[in-house]
Amino acid sequence: MSHKLLVHNKRFLLESGLSLPKLEIAYHTFGKLNAEKSNVVWVAHALTANSNVFDWWQGLFGINELFNPDEYFVVCANNLGSCYGTTGPLSINPDTNQPWYAYFPEITTKDMANALQLLKEHLGIEKIHTLIGGSQGGQIALEWSLLQKDISEHLILIATNAQHSSWGIAFNESQRLAIKADRTYFSNSPQGGAKGLKAARSIALLSYRSYDTYQNTQSSDKYSNNYAASYQRYQGEKLVNRFNAYAYVRLSEAMDSHNISKNRGDNVVNVLKAIKAKTLVIGLKTDILFPTSEQRFIANNIKDSVYSEIDSLYGHDGFLIETKQLTEHIKQFYQSNTIKINEAVI
Amino acid sequence: MSHKLLVHNKRFLLESGLSLPKLEIAYHTFGKLNAEKSNVVWVAHALTANSNVFDWWQGLFGINELFNPDEYFVVCANNLGSCYGTTGPLSINPDTNQPWYAYFPEITTKDMANALQLLKEHLGIEKIHTLIGGSQGGQIALEWSLLQKDISEHLILIATNAQHSSWGIAFNESQRLAIKADRTYFSNSPQGGAKGLKAARSIALLSYRSYDTYQNTQSSDKYSNNYAASYQRYQGEKLVNRFNAYAYVRLSEAMDSHNISKNRGDNVVNVLKAIKAKTLVIGLKTDILFPTSEQRFIANNIKDSVYSEIDSLYGHDGFLIETKQLTEHIKQFYQSNTIKINEAVI
Repeated sequence: MSHKLLVHNKRFLLESGLSLPKLEIAYHTFGKLNAEKSNVVWVAHALTANSNVFDWWQGLFGINELFNPDEYFVVCANNLGSCYGTTGPLSINPDTNQPWYAYFPEITTKDMANALQLLKEHLGIEKIHTLIGGSQGGQIALEWSLLQKDISEHLILIATNAQHSSWGIAFNESQRLAIKADRTYFSNSPQGGAKGLKAARSIALLSYRSYDTYQNTQSSDKYSNNYAASYQRYQGEKLVNRFNAYAYVRLSEAMDSHNISKNRGDNVVNVLKAIKAKTLVIGLKTDILFPTSEQRFIANNIKDSVYSEIDSLYGHDGFLIETKQLTEHIKQFYQSNTIKINEAVI
Repeated sequence: MSHKLLVHNKRFLLESGLSLPKLEIAYHTFGKLNAEKSNVVWVAHALTANSNVFDWWQGLFGINELFNPDEYFVVCANNLGSCYGTTGPLSINPDTNQPWYAYFPEITTKDMANALQLLKEHLGIEKIHTLIGGSQGGQIALEWSLLQKDISEHLILIATNAQHSSWGIAFNESQRLAIKADRTYFSNSPQGGAKGLKAARSIALLSYRSYDTYQNTQSSDKYSNNYAASYQRYQGEKLVNRFNAYAYVRLSEAMDSHNISKNRGDNVVNVLKAIKAKTLVIGLKTDILFPTSEQRFIANNIKDSVYSEIDSLYGHDGFLIETKQLTEHIKQFYQSNTIKINEAVI
C-alpha cells in the first residue's frame, strides 16, 4: 500500500525559530473512521521506521490482530525529518531547488508532534481512541499529549522516556561521530555519509540488544569469531540501503532534544501530572537503552496510568518483536478500563 | 620514567603464519628482583594502556600501595601491536623502511603472550610471583598461563574472559566500522583514521560504563542536553591525542581472536582445568562488556581458584578505578593462600 500525502503549502515554524517553507506529510491509514469518529488508533513511529505500520509492527497491527482494520481506523504518519515521504533532509528546499541534505534545520520532538497535529486536523479527527508509540515514537506521543491536552482517550507508551538520558545521548553522539568521520557526509550528495551510517547502525544495534541477545542468537564460528562482526556489517548495510545519513543525524538530534519539562516549568513530575489520558506504560526488562526505571517514572507520575513489564531476549528491540505479549497487556488495559467505566455506571 | 627496550633481531613468528622481521619490546620495571627471584609481579595491560603501570594503575601500584617497589619487582611491557614503544603499526617495517600502518599483520592474544615470554627470558625471570591483568590484559595473562604452564605462582584475572563474546566482538566491529568510515584510514599516514578513532573511543566508552554511570556523573544541561554529547567528543579527542587508529584496529582484532580453546581441543572447560596457578578472578557487578558470568565461569573451572566481586558505579572501567577494593580482595587472596600453606605444614 503506497502512502498518502498531505501538502501543507504554508511555512511550518520550528521550535528553533527557523521554519520550513512548506511541509509534506506522508501517511498511511487502514480501516475506516466510524460514524462516531471513535475508533482512531494513531501510531507514532520510531527512529528509522515509516508510515506503513501494518508492515513493521505485524503481530500487533494486521487483519487478524488486535489493531485490525475491521474495528479500527489506524493512522500512521512518517515523522518530520525522515526519508519515507515526509519533508526531511532529502526533500527539495523550494528556496534553492536543491535537496537540503546537511542544511536541513535541526528539529525537536515538539516539531515532530506539531506535524502530526497538522495531519490530525486535515483528517478531521477530533479525538483519538488510542495514541501509541514505542521508543522515539513514545517520546513523540508523550510530547503531543502535552501540546494538545485532550488528544486521546488512551495513551500507550512503550520503551520510552520523559527526557532523553545522558546515556541515550552518548549513544546517539557516538553514532553521529561515526557518520561525520565519513567525510562524504559533507559532500551533500545522495549517498553522503553512507559508510558512517553503516557504522552508526552497528552501534545503535548494540543499544537495541544486550549481551544475552548476542550470546543466545549468534552461534559464533569457534575459530574465526567472525560471525558477530559480519552480522554488524550486514545490519549496517541493510540500513544504508533503506535510509540516509542526513535524516539519521537530524532524527537522532531530535531524540536528544526530548525533554517534556522544557519551557513547562522544569519539573518533569508536574508536567506528567497534566496528562489526562488513560495511560498504559510498558517497559522491557532487558532494555539497556530505555531501562524500565524510565517507564516506571512515567507511570508513577501520570495520574490515570498503569505500568506493565514485558520479558524479552531482544532488549529494546523487543518492543517490535514481542507483539504477543504487547497484545495481551493492551487487551488487559482496555478491559480494566471498561470495567472501571461499567462500575461507575452501576 | 622512560621505558627500557628489548631489541629482538630475529624474525618473530605470528599465529597467522606471517612473521615480523624484528621485534622491539618497550617495558618498565619498578623495584628490584630479590636474591630468590621470588618477588616478580608482572602486569599485562589492556587495550590502550602502556608499560608505565605506576602511572595508569595508581592506587594499586605505587610507592605506598600494595604493589610497591620496596617489596616487589614489577614488570610491565607495552603490548605487541600497540604504539607505546613496542613494535606495532607505527613502527618502521625494515623491509620497506616505511611505517607499517594498515599493512601491519593481524595479531592474536597468543602472539601478544609470546612477546611477553621473550621479555621474561631476556630478564632471566624463572617464576613470576603474581601475573595480573584486567580486560584484554587478563586475556593475555590467561593465554600466557596456558602457553607456559608454570609461569606464575599466583594469577589474578580481572574483568576478563576465556573467549571473547559475540557482544564484545560486535562492539569492536562497530568501532572498526567507524574508523574505516573515515577514509583517511586508507591513506596510511600518521593521522590516518583520526576522526574515526574519535568515534571509536566514544563507542568504547559506552561499553566501559553504564546507564547509571552517565546518569550519576553527568549533570545534564536541562535545556540543550548537550553535556553528554560533548563529553563523548572530549573523550574521543583525548584518545586521538595519545593513540592511533592503526594500532587500535589491530589490538581490537586481537581481542576478538581471544579464545583459549583454539587448537587446544575446543573445550574451554578442560582448557581452564590445566591452569595450575593459585588464581583470583575478580568481576565487577556493573560491567556490561565483560559481565560477571564470564569471570564466574573462569573461576568455576580453574582448579585452585577463588572468585570475588567488586561494586562500582563505573562498570568495566571500575577495574582501573576501584583500586581500594582491588587491594582488599588481593590482600585477602594472598592471606588465604598463606593460611592454606601453613595449615598444610601443620
